Amino acid sequence: MLSKNEVKYIQSLSHKKRREEENLFIAEGSKIVLECLKEIPHQIFRLYATDEYIQLHQLAQDFSDKVIVTEEEMERISQLQTAQQALVILKKKSVETNKTINDGWWLALDGIRDPGNMGTIIRLADWFGLNGIICSEDCADIYNSKVVQASMGSIIRVSIVEKNLQLYLSDVKVPLVGAVLGGKEISAYKFPSKGILVIGNESAGIRKEISSLLTDKIMIPRFGQAESLNAAIATGIFLWELNRPV
Amino acid sequence: MLSKNEVKYIQSLSHKKRREEENLFIAEGSKIVLECLKEIPHQIFRLYATDEYIQLHQLAQDFSDKVIVTEEEMERISQLQTAQQALVILKKKSVETNKTINDGWWLALDGIRDPGNMGTIIRLADWFGLNGIICSEDCADIYNSKVVQASMGSIIRVSIVEKNLQLYLSDVKVPLVGAVLGGKEISAYKFPSKGILVIGNESAGIRKEISSLLTDKIMIPRFGQAESLNAAIATGIFLWELNRPV
Repeated sequence: MLSKNEVKYIQSLSHKKRREEENLFIAEGSKIVLECLKEIPHQIFRLYATDEYIQLHQLAQDFSDKVIVTEEEMERISQLQTAQQALVILKKKSVETNKTINDGWWLALDGIRDPGNMGTIIRLADWFGLNGIICSEDCADIYNSKVVQASMGSIIRVSIVEKNLQLYLSDVKVPLVGAVLGGKEISAYKFPSKGILVIGNESAGIRKEISSLLTDKIMIPRFGQAESLNAAIATGIFLWELNRPV
Repeated sequence: MLSKNEVKYIQSLSHKKRREEENLFIAEGSKIVLECLKEIPHQIFRLYATDEYIQLHQLAQDFSDKVIVTEEEMERISQLQTAQQALVILKKKSVETNKTINDGWWLALDGIRDPGNMGTIIRLADWFGLNGIICSEDCADIYNSKVVQASMGSIIRVSIVEKNLQLYLSDVKVPLVGAVLGGKEISAYKFPSKGILVIGNESAGIRKEISSLLTDKIMIPRFGQAESLNAAIATGIFLWELNRPV
C-alpha cells in the first residue's frame, strides 16, 4: 500500500520544477515500462505496477525496486486520462553533445511548444536514427507526460539536450540547414553527410537571430492551398529526404 | 444578446448526432472565420463575433447573417479551451466522389481515430492538392471541433466523404496503394498518375479485408529503432514521395 507521502511525491513530478530538482521523470503504460525494464533498467528509479502486470512479465518480477499497487492507487498516481497497469519513475540521463556533434545528423528545435509535436519529433529522430536533438530553452519540456506519451517510448532512446540555441549554434562548425520561405526545393538539395537540421516554432518559424546562422535554406514545395504544414510533419518529410536513397 | 435557447443550440452542435441531424458544424478562430467569409460565404449558416472583430474586418461587416456577441457570450458558445473572437456555424457540403475518382489521387483513411491526426491529414491533403479523402465509418468525425481546429482551415477546402471502405474500394478501378510491412521501399516505387493511397489505423494498420484489396504495397524504411511512425507523419512522407519531382 502506498503512503500518502509517496502518492504526493509521485504526483509532484507532474511539475517541471520538481522534475528538475529531483532529476527524475515519469513514463506510463505497459509497453514503455517493458521497454525501460529491457533497455534501461539502470535508469529506473522505481517501478509501480499492478499485481496482474507483474505476474505477466518476468522482467517486472526480476526487477527489485518495485511497488505493487492496486488499480485505485494507480489512478491516483497516473497523469493519464485512463491509468494503465504500470508506471516507472526514471532518472534523467545526461547527454554530452560536444563530443559527437561533428558526425552525422542532429535536430535543433527552435521553440517547439506543442507537447504532441515534441513527442512526435522525438519518435521521428528515433525512427531515422539521428544522433540526437538540441532544444531551445522555450521548447515544451521533454519530460512533460504528454511529450513522453507522444514519443511512444522513443524518449528513452534519443539523446536530447536543452541549450541557448542561438549561442550554441553560432559556435558549431557543421552545416546548419533550416526551412525558410524561398529556400531551395528539398528534392533539388543535396544533404551533406553531417549537419544540424533546424526546425522552427509552429507559427513563427525559425527566429531571425537563428535564421541568420543557417548555411543552407530549404523548403517543401506546396501543391495545393494549405498555408503551411504542421511542424512535426515538415520534420518527417525533411528527415525522410535526408535519409532517402537516391 | 444571445437567448438561452440559441446558446443551447450552438452548444448542442458539439455532439455528432446533432451535427448530423442539422447538417451543420462549427469552426472557430479569427483566421478560419475570415477564410470562410472569403472562400465559402454561401456555406456559412451564421457568424458570431465580437464587435471588435467585426469592426476590424470588412468581410464580417458585409456579411448579413451575423450576431454580435460579448466575450462572455463567446466563452459560453465556444468549444475551445480559450474562446476566440469569432465563430461560424457552417453547412456541411455534399461531395460526389464517383464522378472524379478516376483522375488524380485520393486518400482513403481506414479507422483513423485520433482527431489531431485526422485534422493534420486533412491539412496535408490540402497542401498536396489531393482530390479528396474517403473515410471509413469508424474514423474520427471530421466535424469534431478538434479535427476542425487541427486542419487549420483546410476542412473548408478538402472534399471528404464517409463510406463503407471495404465495399467502396472493392468497386474502384484505380490502383490501391497502401503501407504494409514488407511492402516496396517508397523511393523505389513509381507512383502511378492516379490512384488511392490507403492509410491504416494508428495501432492496427490497414485491416485485413482492405489490405487484401491493395494492388500495390509500399513502406517507409526505418533507419533507427522506433517501432512505428505516427499515422499522420507517414501520410506526409507518402504524399511528399507521391508528388516529389524525380
